[in-house]
Amino acid sequence: MKLFSKVAIVGLGLIGGSIALACKKNKIAGSIIGISRRKSTLANAKKIGIFDCVSGDIRRVKGCDLLIFATPVGTTLRLAARVRRVIADECIVTDVGSTKEVVVAKLENLFPGFVGSHPLAGSEKSGIGNASSGLFKGSCWIVTPTARTNRLALDKIMLFSRRLGAHARCISPALHDIILSFTSHLPHAAAFSLITTVPVRYLPWSAGGLRDTTRVAASEAQLWADIFLTNRNNVLGAISLLQQNVAKIKSAIAKNDRGVLIKILKHAKDKRVALDSRKT
Amino acid sequence: MKLFSKVAIVGLGLIGGSIALACKKNKIAGSIIGISRRKSTLANAKKIGIFDCVSGDIRRVKGCDLLIFATPVGTTLRLAARVRRVIADECIVTDVGSTKEVVVAKLENLFPGFVGSHPLAGSEKSGIGNASSGLFKGSCWIVTPTARTNRLALDKIMLFSRRLGAHARCISPALHDIILSFTSHLPHAAAFSLITTVPVRYLPWSAGGLRDTTRVAASEAQLWADIFLTNRNNVLGAISLLQQNVAKIKSAIAKNDRGVLIKILKHAKDKRVALDSRKT
Repeated sequence: MKLFSKVAIVGLGLIGGSIALACKKNKIAGSIIGISRRKSTLANAKKIGIFDCVSGDIRRVKGCDLLIFATPVGTTLRLAARVRRVIADECIVTDVGSTKEVVVAKLENLFPGFVGSHPLAGSEKSGIGNASSGLFKGSCWIVTPTARTNRLALDKIMLFSRRLGAHARCISPALHDIILSFTSHLPHAAAFSLITTVPVRYLPWSAGGLRDTTRVAASEAQLWADIFLTNRNNVLGAISLLQQNVAKIKSAIAKNDRGVLIKILKHAKDKRVALDSRKT
Repeated sequence: MKLFSKVAIVGLGLIGGSIALACKKNKIAGSIIGISRRKSTLANAKKIGIFDCVSGDIRRVKGCDLLIFATPVGTTLRLAARVRRVIADECIVTDVGSTKEVVVAKLENLFPGFVGSHPLAGSEKSGIGNASSGLFKGSCWIVTPTARTNRLALDKIMLFSRRLGAHARCISPALHDIILSFTSHLPHAAAFSLITTVPVRYLPWSAGGLRDTTRVAASEAQLWADIFLTNRNNVLGAISLLQQNVAKIKSAIAKNDRGVLIKILKHAKDKRVALDSRKT
């Protein structure tokens, strides 16, 4: 027996497409419905040939027992009420958005079977064309239950994420948003600021350092605007701390204080080296 | 006939080791002398088996017709006078340091055959153990002549860099330092600051974004302290501009101004996407 009989995926980008591919490969769903408002995306999804139905009409999700919002946070918030009208109370609903407090608060009010989640997988390369059934393999899939979360829905979402190859970890929506403001949202804010600062005429004189450091600045602007704005206070707090640390390095350079500068850089280096040896 | 009869490489790290390997592979040198003060490095260099002599005694460079300082900028400045005592006026001398104005000013006073250079290759992984004969293949090798530079020395260094697989580009030491303050030194300052800002307990909850954005923060602290301090004014200027751009993103988030935020992020994204399609 399949884990779900009818899985509906709303949003067919990198994450939605990869979930669909992984569902198919791991025989998780009886049938898979893909929803996108873009005609070109629907055409691409049809080509892959794994969907039982692809449609621009969100009412086609009717009858599903798992619905996944694989849309940007802002879109998920806008679509939720329309989805509610067509799905049953028993349907398990999740999302894969990068911020959780705002989304969970709204969606658990609408859907009795809602469990927030956030797979820590992805890339600056968006679109179903870059989707892969192995995207979640070995990665961390954060699940964010609350006191109101249905226990069966929680268990099934955790099992679902494991069947996709990820390891599931539970934390509260609030803690998720604090942690991710540092480990994901801040690096994006820094990368966007950094590439903005480099004059265009100097770009040809760059090596791997600038490329790596700004790689995530190639991410979608609207998606990231919504992430920053739905995790506003945490992101502002993280940026303030970054500003303090930039000011400390700047001050050591301005004062020609090699001792302090080496101490700051050495501490940063040790932390970065440790990052490579850690796993969630 | 070989391009040089005796090449001395002072400093046997990633760059020095890679130059030695590339010299051997491309039959550029009659013999190669490697100098390092570290016993473990000398032992590693011996194991590679491409040096005709490895030594901790800098006087062994005597008789070379090309000498390369492959040491950190600070070390190059400290060693220059001692090297001068043992090599001939005709010897061609270069360095591979990441800042050029301070080094070129001092070394062209000491060595009649000096030409500054800076191969835009490297990695956060240091040490001769990571050296590779192909490190410079297809990369940009910046050469920084001045009005005082000997023409034959300049031609031979440019030819040398091409024989190592790089493409040589000439700019002034001053322009080099301005450009690199944006394309290399600023990304490093940002990465060091960023990893410093992320609380250790949150590090396990990170994905590719934080890893890429802070990869260069695993670089050597002393090396980077000297780079920042020998390019102080340019680095301070670049950091100030970064601070302004961080403040702009922060302000748009604080004001909940989605329109301005998307505009900033979109502009950054377009620039970053263009970076991938550019070549020096």
